[in-house]
Amino acid sequence: MISVDEARVRVLDTLRPTPAEIVALADAWNRVTAEAVTARLTQPPADISAMDGYALRAADGALNAVLTVIGSAPAGHPFGFAVGPGQAVRLFTGSVIPAGADAILLQEDATRDGDTVRINEAVDKGRHVRRKGQDFAAGDIVLPAGRRMTARDVGLAAAANHPWLTVHRRPRVAILATGDEIAMPGEPIPPGGIVSSNSHALAALVRAGGGDPAILPVAKDDRSAIGAVADSVQGMDLLVTTGGASVGDHDLVIEALKARGMTLDFWQIAMRPGKPLLFGQLGTTPVLGLPGNPVSAMVCAILFLLPALARLSGLPAAPPPVSAAILGAPLKQNDRRADHLRASVATDSSGRAVATPFPSQDSAMLRRLALADALIVRPPNAPALAPGAEVGIIRLDSLGL
Amino acid sequence: MISVDEARVRVLDTLRPTPAEIVALADAWNRVTAEAVTARLTQPPADISAMDGYALRAADGALNAVLTVIGSAPAGHPFGFAVGPGQAVRLFTGSVIPAGADAILLQEDATRDGDTVRINEAVDKGRHVRRKGQDFAAGDIVLPAGRRMTARDVGLAAAANHPWLTVHRRPRVAILATGDEIAMPGEPIPPGGIVSSNSHALAALVRAGGGDPAILPVAKDDRSAIGAVADSVQGMDLLVTTGGASVGDHDLVIEALKARGMTLDFWQIAMRPGKPLLFGQLGTTPVLGLPGNPVSAMVCAILFLLPALARLSGLPAAPPPVSAAILGAPLKQNDRRADHLRASVATDSSGRAVATPFPSQDSAMLRRLALADALIVRPPNAPALAPGAEVGIIRLDSLGL
Repeated sequence: MISVDEARVRVLDTLRPTPAEIVALADAWNRVTAEAVTARLTQPPADISAMDGYALRAADGALNAVLTVIGSAPAGHPFGFAVGPGQAVRLFTGSVIPAGADAILLQEDATRDGDTVRINEAVDKGRHVRRKGQDFAAGDIVLPAGRRMTARDVGLAAAANHPWLTVHRRPRVAILATGDEIAMPGEPIPPGGIVSSNSHALAALVRAGGGDPAILPVAKDDRSAIGAVADSVQGMDLLVTTGGASVGDHDLVIEALKARGMTLDFWQIAMRPGKPLLFGQLGTTPVLGLPGNPVSAMVCAILFLLPALARLSGLPAAPPPVSAAILGAPLKQNDRRADHLRASVATDSSGRAVATPFPSQDSAMLRRLALADALIVRPPNAPALAPGAEVGIIRLDSLGL
Repeated sequence: MISVDEARVRVLDTLRPTPAEIVALADAWNRVTAEAVTARLTQPPADISAMDGYALRAADGALNAVLTVIGSAPAGHPFGFAVGPGQAVRLFTGSVIPAGADAILLQEDATRDGDTVRINEAVDKGRHVRRKGQDFAAGDIVLPAGRRMTARDVGLAAAANHPWLTVHRRPRVAILATGDEIAMPGEPIPPGGIVSSNSHALAALVRAGGGDPAILPVAKDDRSAIGAVADSVQGMDLLVTTGGASVGDHDLVIEALKARGMTLDFWQIAMRPGKPLLFGQLGTTPVLGLPGNPVSAMVCAILFLLPALARLSGLPAAPPPVSAAILGAPLKQNDRRADHLRASVATDSSGRAVATPFPSQDSAMLRRLALADALIVRPPNAPALAPGAEVGIIRLDSLGL
């Protein structure tokens, strides 16, 4: 058996980011930059006012001085002339500060009377001025390559004057569920059969990870039917299969895909739920084989498929983020398989996360899985723990998983 | 001035969830259920085996007993006959347990020899059996109304045999930036002007919140041009404007929309960045007016627009989630305006989040905003704090904001 970490490294090491494509900025949210984003202009483009008020020479800005207002410069309408001694120009937030002026009199510190303005609070030179280039200068890298674009990043790219961005193509992931006993939701269920939940759950996880899923038709336990699938995944960045990975009598998927030229690694992974994991290569398409059990499939997808999606998307190879939590119930010593306990998470009075494992960890309980806020990660051979001990958790609640 | 909380309650109280629509399960990820999802079948549909092995009568399951294997029942192929005394049926994970049998002999505890199997470990009655309905029974509510569908929820809805789900329509949000000084990215920039970042940043935030954004053309500071916008937002669930909400000389947006019949509340909110917030009603479309400053606009969007999107989507009215963090740098006493400091967040050796405010909080710094992991929420008149004190933060890093 190999460890979860070793299996993940082996998978991620073989994956390459998808090629770049150009998208409109409006479509760039949640996409991963394939090139650094360089500012195409300087922001602010000139010294501008941070407040509504008046531009003047600091030398004229003494308390009770009275200046002549020679004009107004709304944002977007720069004043065309210089401000001379004893003069002021009406400004607004974002207005370019006219030549000659080097101080701002706040509107609330001014008394306007026709063409004059009285200073009720002495001005400070440079105060309330936003300097040219204070946010960024033309040529600055404002966003690195390999970054998943947040809403704020999109705003920054807009401010840097990028109508288009170069991003990695969304990974295309084909999902294949197999088995005589399964039917898609709403379709006739064979005797003793069940409705396939894996395909839809994994497709949704692919979306949560920023990929484009394609749900393939359920393949019956028939070699030629499964083999035909092999021809349909050309151009896919990843084929994910579920089931057919046991050491039992029914590994037709492997046989069928091998007959089509798939090279295959088959690993026993020291983990629970889940254990066998397939990883192979079918032509140019990597193949990740997850367990058929729905809970095991989702846990393995969180541990392996989600990092694979990130890597294919152009992000660094990395495990899912593990954060610290306080244990809410005792845990027995763990055996040699890493465990991933479905747990609820509450917040205690000091704001710490408290993770409490569900009493039943039966891997057939989809409803329980859906209710979980997190997986408690138990390393192999972890000692028994009392409530209050610290554990590592993978949070599920905010990731759309 | 009113508080952030009071303003948010006023906004959320007027919003109603969008109507329901029916979507294919494959499109249901991240959508909000408009009806409870009720199981259309029982899962498991019968008592099934949790392991590979043999079904037998517990009374026959003594150590070293030898049973006659009368057949095999792969998953999806139930055995048609009852298991009698001294008999066993080969089973696999997911196989229906045949009538008569009430115990499972694990494969690894069995020695098969032609038509017989020897028991190497005495069986426990009921062990390794998944009971009919253990996960859910037909008619059970497996997902409540008003829940944003995770990938696991999609899997659960699939298992409950729902090919379609009834969800709230994605909120349609029109976004209007105004001002003579602004241009869209890539378009000619007027003298002294800047590129509009608000429209794209807010559109991305609308996507992050599960809505469908529509970026309206930039409206020049011209009453008829702005008024024409009013006619284009029919059928939108929300109109978001930026800028034009100051008490300065340039509130043409308000005047123009009022002339089209908009009723309007105008609030001074005790907060920073941001302060004025417009909320009104233009025909059937609520109008939320955010500040023109990009940093203020995003912070106000996180505090008001994101909860509004959740409410329109069918989720409960709620503030953005505030979590606890340890302060990484001293903070001065706060004035009467709630502050929202852009901060980096690290994790200390005990796993606690440590939030350190950026030295400069200038609200013109988009680049700084994009780098922030969180906003530190400072209540009005909060006392000075030393490093190590506990503060509330709104995390930005995992929400796509």
